[in-house]
Amino acid sequence: MIIDRFVALATAHAPGQEVRQAAGDVGNLMRGRKLSGRPVDFSHGDVDAFLPTPGASDHFLEALAAGGRQAYTEYRGTADIRAGLSEALATFTGAPVSADDGTIVTPGTQGALFLAVASLVSPGDQVAIVQPDYFANRKLVEFFGGRPVPVTMDYLCGSDEAGLNLVQLQAAFEAGARVFLFSNPNNPTGAVYSKREIVEIARLAAAFGVTIIADQLYARLLYPNEAYAHIRAAGLPAERIITIMGPSKTESLSGYRLGIAFGAPAVIERMEKLQAIVSLRAAGYNQAVLRTWFREPAGWLEERILKHQAIRNDLLGVLRDGGLATREPQAGSYLFPTLPPLAVELADFVRLLRHQAGVIVTPGTEFGPYPNSIRLNFSQDHTEAVAAGQRIVEMARRYRRRGPPHAPSNCNLASRA
Amino acid sequence: MIIDRFVALATAHAPGQEVRQAAGDVGNLMRGRKLSGRPVDFSHGDVDAFLPTPGASDHFLEALAAGGRQAYTEYRGTADIRAGLSEALATFTGAPVSADDGTIVTPGTQGALFLAVASLVSPGDQVAIVQPDYFANRKLVEFFGGRPVPVTMDYLCGSDEAGLNLVQLQAAFEAGARVFLFSNPNNPTGAVYSKREIVEIARLAAAFGVTIIADQLYARLLYPNEAYAHIRAAGLPAERIITIMGPSKTESLSGYRLGIAFGAPAVIERMEKLQAIVSLRAAGYNQAVLRTWFREPAGWLEERILKHQAIRNDLLGVLRDGGLATREPQAGSYLFPTLPPLAVELADFVRLLRHQAGVIVTPGTEFGPYPNSIRLNFSQDHTEAVAAGQRIVEMARRYRRRGPPHAPSNCNLASRA
Repeated sequence: MIIDRFVALATAHAPGQEVRQAAGDVGNLMRGRKLSGRPVDFSHGDVDAFLPTPGASDHFLEALAAGGRQAYTEYRGTADIRAGLSEALATFTGAPVSADDGTIVTPGTQGALFLAVASLVSPGDQVAIVQPDYFANRKLVEFFGGRPVPVTMDYLCGSDEAGLNLVQLQAAFEAGARVFLFSNPNNPTGAVYSKREIVEIARLAAAFGVTIIADQLYARLLYPNEAYAHIRAAGLPAERIITIMGPSKTESLSGYRLGIAFGAPAVIERMEKLQAIVSLRAAGYNQAVLRTWFREPAGWLEERILKHQAIRNDLLGVLRDGGLATREPQAGSYLFPTLPPLAVELADFVRLLRHQAGVIVTPGTEFGPYPNSIRLNFSQDHTEAVAAGQRIVEMARRYRRRGPPHAPSNCNLASRA
Repeated sequence: MIIDRFVALATAHAPGQEVRQAAGDVGNLMRGRKLSGRPVDFSHGDVDAFLPTPGASDHFLEALAAGGRQAYTEYRGTADIRAGLSEALATFTGAPVSADDGTIVTPGTQGALFLAVASLVSPGDQVAIVQPDYFANRKLVEFFGGRPVPVTMDYLCGSDEAGLNLVQLQAAFEAGARVFLFSNPNNPTGAVYSKREIVEIARLAAAFGVTIIADQLYARLLYPNEAYAHIRAAGLPAERIITIMGPSKTESLSGYRLGIAFGAPAVIERMEKLQAIVSLRAAGYNQAVLRTWFREPAGWLEERILKHQAIRNDLLGVLRDGGLATREPQAGSYLFPTLPPLAVELADFVRLLRHQAGVIVTPGTEFGPYPNSIRLNFSQDHTEAVAAGQRIVEMARRYRRRGPPHAPSNCNLASRA
């Protein structure tokens, strides 16, 4: 039944949809009074705290003045914009990008992910996905009738590697998975895959004829002294990889809905055919904003990274001091702390956080079987983010399950100091 | 095989994709010299000839200034924009629209169509579609594994009715079709369904439990003294109809990619869930442009309609005088003339039109089995459109198949004078 297909697409707890949630009977569960403080919405980055790339709106207005030429582009996006980007992306990822056959501009990276999965997954296909990973990955695979095969990532232990279980990955390929979909940096943990992990993923993919969809949305927000290995440069044939990026996060251009997919020409061609019936094209005028991408003013990106690093460090300190085991992200602006065992359901705790503490977070259950985790996008006002972090810690203390102290995780705070 | 799914999605002849077509060996086919004249692209409206709604960019810039609040909206779009539109759309269509549960803002009407079909069609389902109708309808149904059941429209005969074959429609329902997807005004012919036809469609839909997707993209560009019957107001239960509109055509706002679907709350809810994995939302800032919709300056719409009517009349005269049987559109800016039997394939004729006559049109085969028709969007500069129409007539004369004069269609020019 068609209804079943949509049950799996539940969005009630998706980031940004909180406005559609009823408060429910959260008042009955409340312990103590409300916690005061300016509300912070950690479900997505705050583009008022970190402004869009300088010059973005100028390019939009130029496109508007250009008129029909920019309103009606090829479905895969304006040729000269793709040409400019293909050079920048080739340099960034360390492998050639074909402007003509190997790029497509999409309505956000979400649009690119949707088209890529639709172009590679048929009913019954097994698709290896990481656990935890971006919540839409599983939903996309299931929507097209595919079967997600989870591959776990032991993200809490260590920061030199993401912690992907490569034995499980090989087993998934041996069992028949021919597509591997993963985000790097990982969403929700901020883990970056090590060179060793990337090389091994590429080796396994080559051995089993697997096509890779690499969601690298956060790859530019890499903290100082961290290394990033691009899977495009790991020796796989070009027709085996689709890479997805976009300026919605680091560059705060989410309101323009822009993304790009690049790589395997045969897959890009399918994606364009599908885009023609999904939404025709990314909004024509908006596409022009991509002219700012990878061409930001000197020092702009570095400053943005340092500011995020400072928030990361402070918030991480608050969460860990409060007893919430949390991986230090190597890139991006997500934290995925583990809560203590709670006396309430995670969904209720998230609702309580919102109504009692003025803090919006995304429940860990959106990313896999993580009923004791929450995700925070810390691209926020620094001071308010830290204050909200303190409220989270206080709330975790209040709603902690009474009883013997819980066993620390294998990778507890002491071992990570 | 997944590849099969994409063969059916061919976009090589889709409007706007001409830039990706090779000229091929069109030179070998050429009869006579090039025809001079300013190039005209009839594949879509010219937003430089008919400018976007006054104030549209101001609303965009206000949204940009509003920042995060407008960048991250609910997946179904900003609540207050939906509230404003729901009132306008209720008045326009003559039936209530729920702002909270019955509306979703999408990336263009294409986005709305995609989500609506995805939400109503499962593999194996029969879907009644009109022939001719918008080329994406069939592709959408087939992409989701549905089986299109064509219902013919005898559009060349008469202008009091669209000419839908209601006997065939009933037969399609009797054979099991439970979704009926149609555009009104019809794309590509500009035919508007009569009150009698709409009432009968509604009666049959009610009798067979059919859900209707009504694409009313062009419903506002209705020529003077023409009547338009909204199927929403024809007595069907609200949960049986999804109506789709948008400001891309009459209002020339296509470059912003905005559409709206309204009606059946259960379907709208599925559409939102799907939008969450397809593209999250229509671009946040762009949504604000909808604040201009149905609130244009006094007289603006009327003037736009009269200007299109003048182009329609002149172009229709040129085409008919040239022997191309053409329905007079009651609304919208499409003409769908019938060519004489040609000595070349339609695809080659279209290519010749482009390379020899500087005229881009969409081949009739995109809309059904119409190898002797072409579609023109005449929302163009008036003078240039008429000149280009004359070049089409001259090209039809040059490439006409030699031999006995072809039999006139049943509804020939004389009978329509």
